[in-house]
Amino acid sequence: MQPFSIAIHGGAGTILKSDLTPELEAAYLKGLDDALTTGYAALEKGGSSLDAVTAAVVSLEDCILFNAGRGSVFTKTGKHEMDASIMNGRTLEAGAVAGVQKVKNPVLLAKAIMEKSEHVMLSGEGALQFAKEQQLQLKEDDYFFSQFRYEQWQMVKNENTVALDHNLQVSSSAKTMADKEKKFGTVGAVACDASGNLAAATSTGGMTNKNYNRIGDTPVIGAGTYAGNKTCAISCTGHGELFIKAVAAYDVSCLMEYKGCSLQQAMEIVTLDKLVKINGEGGMIGADAKGNIALVFNSEGMYRGLQKSNGEKLVAIYH
Amino acid sequence: MQPFSIAIHGGAGTILKSDLTPELEAAYLKGLDDALTTGYAALEKGGSSLDAVTAAVVSLEDCILFNAGRGSVFTKTGKHEMDASIMNGRTLEAGAVAGVQKVKNPVLLAKAIMEKSEHVMLSGEGALQFAKEQQLQLKEDDYFFSQFRYEQWQMVKNENTVALDHNLQVSSSAKTMADKEKKFGTVGAVACDASGNLAAATSTGGMTNKNYNRIGDTPVIGAGTYAGNKTCAISCTGHGELFIKAVAAYDVSCLMEYKGCSLQQAMEIVTLDKLVKINGEGGMIGADAKGNIALVFNSEGMYRGLQKSNGEKLVAIYH
Repeated sequence: MQPFSIAIHGGAGTILKSDLTPELEAAYLKGLDDALTTGYAALEKGGSSLDAVTAAVVSLEDCILFNAGRGSVFTKTGKHEMDASIMNGRTLEAGAVAGVQKVKNPVLLAKAIMEKSEHVMLSGEGALQFAKEQQLQLKEDDYFFSQFRYEQWQMVKNENTVALDHNLQVSSSAKTMADKEKKFGTVGAVACDASGNLAAATSTGGMTNKNYNRIGDTPVIGAGTYAGNKTCAISCTGHGELFIKAVAAYDVSCLMEYKGCSLQQAMEIVTLDKLVKINGEGGMIGADAKGNIALVFNSEGMYRGLQKSNGEKLVAIYH
Repeated sequence: MQPFSIAIHGGAGTILKSDLTPELEAAYLKGLDDALTTGYAALEKGGSSLDAVTAAVVSLEDCILFNAGRGSVFTKTGKHEMDASIMNGRTLEAGAVAGVQKVKNPVLLAKAIMEKSEHVMLSGEGALQFAKEQQLQLKEDDYFFSQFRYEQWQMVKNENTVALDHNLQVSSSAKTMADKEKKFGTVGAVACDASGNLAAATSTGGMTNKNYNRIGDTPVIGAGTYAGNKTCAISCTGHGELFIKAVAAYDVSCLMEYKGCSLQQAMEIVTLDKLVKINGEGGMIGADAKGNIALVFNSEGMYRGLQKSNGEKLVAIYH
């Protein structure tokens, strides 16, 4: 049996230790650890990388702290419009959903699109209809409500802008938050299972106060998510528009396939060089088919974790 | 001054000479020639590649024969939901719209998103709202109506399926059409201007009888459209789901950047090898910064054309 491993992220951005209370820091670390434990357990009992990334992302979506699923930010009209995608590195099958409301776990919808539809990408009302037909769990607006996100929305709304950020401590320093903090609220997971199969999944509530049914990189296969057994599984978090222009996730794969880069090298070229040159703040997590993991970001921090069958385990926030 | 050039496509698929009447063939060739002439004229008078691809795609969108803009197919609910994208190879700026209704020229909306919004990708009602704010021309449903597409929709609807196809001669042999004909209705243009700047644009009405607000490869930067001055400008047409999984347009760029392939070589690897292996029927057009053009497809035919500053000109349909 070959090594297996999983990595997760809960968003990247200007996350400084001075901005988090000890209680909040502990809550974030617990949220990450829970997701990691759930995903790793799936691998440990012989599950596929697809099972593992799905379980980990569901756990992160269910945690109110992260901007995905339950913790999704507010749009300009006070809704929660969620994006998610998933890709199976063994088959290159992929599923993605953009701008869906009410679905408790958008990653499960992305998986259902991949497995039960003839399409890759569904959106909006149509995606919700498909979710209903697939009998996925739906929730009313109050499930997605949290006071801190509401306050964050009000603040951004009053400044008439959009924010990629999310932070729990908005009420205390609402005015400075938009300038000081940039936290790209997205969650994701990548895994390599004991058969050497790769998978990646990503999920987000998008940008606070987002308008015009904006779609970021999360549901864009090749930008926010990619998986191919030959190279890597990648899940990104960051300023989505720039990750789309950079075709960030697939660029890592191409650097490995065509240039012979290692996972770590390829992720550093894309994240620390190419994305930096276009002001593309954020990061990404990656796995290759030998069970190697890389966690690379060009921002102050990234909520992240990894666990490997060799016993290695990490949960971290700051640089 | 370096060579300049433009290429266009109006969709690929099972297009056989025996299926087109001489009148219809002449009409298609004229539609292609009009678009090519319009786009080339922009380049000839010193316009940018961005101007040229925009002008060419607007011309194709205004022609009822092609599945984009005016000629867009019917969705399951009898609507016309259009996708488009554009990318500027000089700046790597990009704009895309998914599932928008009523907009006369979706490529102009994609361009406005690129130039006037802080986003790359807008969708549905939100995209329409942005189009209104930008005072883009809107049209009512009757503008998008044509008898042959209506008949095509009725036929596909009765078979309870979706079709990537479009054909003018549906009424005569409706039953066999879905099996026999596969024509991927998309239009696109790529260009290299006299400054060596590249641009690409793609536009489509999507799949006949499409459901669930499906999004294909056309508005996905990296899949249906990509442009970067360092490598190439690419516009794809084909079975969108597979072009998304293959990240087809950006794969060509990576093969050039990381493996040193020529435009023609890279497009052949992706279209004639990688896409064929996953049953990804279709084709693509490409330009590089030296003014080279390539037109590659793995289907029976592709509506296509090219014009170069060295006097070369081609308009063609079949293999």
